[in-house]
Amino acid sequence: MRSLILLSGGIDSTTLSHYVKKKLKREIYLISFFYGQRHSKEIEYATYQANLLEPIEYKIVDISFFSNLIKNSALINKDINVPTWKDAQKEMPITYVPFRNLVFLSISLSYAESNDIDEIYYAAQRQDYIGYWDCREDFVNRLNELTSLNPKKKIKILAPFVNMRKSEIVKLGIELRVDYTKTWSCYKGENEPCKICPSCVDRKKAFLEAGLYDIE
Amino acid sequence: MRSLILLSGGIDSTTLSHYVKKKLKREIYLISFFYGQRHSKEIEYATYQANLLEPIEYKIVDISFFSNLIKNSALINKDINVPTWKDAQKEMPITYVPFRNLVFLSISLSYAESNDIDEIYYAAQRQDYIGYWDCREDFVNRLNELTSLNPKKKIKILAPFVNMRKSEIVKLGIELRVDYTKTWSCYKGENEPCKICPSCVDRKKAFLEAGLYDIE
Repeated sequence: MRSLILLSGGIDSTTLSHYVKKKLKREIYLISFFYGQRHSKEIEYATYQANLLEPIEYKIVDISFFSNLIKNSALINKDINVPTWKDAQKEMPITYVPFRNLVFLSISLSYAESNDIDEIYYAAQRQDYIGYWDCREDFVNRLNELTSLNPKKKIKILAPFVNMRKSEIVKLGIELRVDYTKTWSCYKGENEPCKICPSCVDRKKAFLEAGLYDIE
Repeated sequence: MRSLILLSGGIDSTTLSHYVKKKLKREIYLISFFYGQRHSKEIEYATYQANLLEPIEYKIVDISFFSNLIKNSALINKDINVPTWKDAQKEMPITYVPFRNLVFLSISLSYAESNDIDEIYYAAQRQDYIGYWDCREDFVNRLNELTSLNPKKKIKILAPFVNMRKSEIVKLGIELRVDYTKTWSCYKGENEPCKICPSCVDRKKAFLEAGLYDIE
């Protein structure tokens, strides 16, 4: 079984990549996207993890045109401040990037069909539920209903972490010997993690909740 | 009402663009894709039509990375011969590009949401039904079911030509004074249309069926 995993270089997708390779024993392909994100530094961490995981192929896709199409997201537009964790606890916070995940998944579907890949793993998890409609189970289900119409190849989108908390993902990753010092979460993408953006705070909370300390 | 139209520079999408602007009287945005297609010449024609149509904005999106992800399509890979019309009369012919239309539509959705655009027009038509699953009504319906989950903005994908024959589209376009000498259909993308590829033959048939002669 050939599986493609969307790997951002953060905790969730890195853990998922190790899980699919080591637990599910799939032949893996990996794909990452440079989309003009202010934290493009995450790609360095994705590359590090990809080197460890030895996929059949690893693609870094440059869709930096994206930043010319999208104006109103703090993850792309540096004139918009990254919000605090508290300000991001609502549906569709300013860190939401319109339809970004569908773009990632569509490109992944193209690549998968062309390479006879059977399934695509997507690291949506439960705590993204609040803010991001495209990280929810019904989003994944409807996308599968769409792709099931393809008469040539039925590629399944799978999101095994969609009902898990980030702390549970971290616990699983520790079992799988994932080195979290080689993952990147901070939205700001500066030399060191800022420790105050929503993504840094979620990371810290996950490690605390899991009874672990982030070594970073 | 703000509307975005996917414009390839061919007959269907050019007619649709004129229709949405002149008949439906929408404020229009246009988007074209350079995806490494062998007939990228179509973009010149799209640009010509866009200049006539005076949209609020016209975006040409360069996703030529696409040709590195996809191998098995005659529209991208020049080592694969463009088939004859007869060889293309089947489901998923060699001119099919895996998930290309979903990639186009996803990027269009990103752009639309970011620009507060209400609807996206997609020039799928009935004769593409045979070969291309992503030109069918159920594809459009399922994509709408997916996008309807977006809590921020409900963007509708509309395909008003989905049950029309190409000859009917041409007749409509003549009423709308579309200049078809300034559209491009040939898959080969050489200096002159080849007249034998599936797209050239479909074009010729449409004009004959409409009782018109293609002036090209």
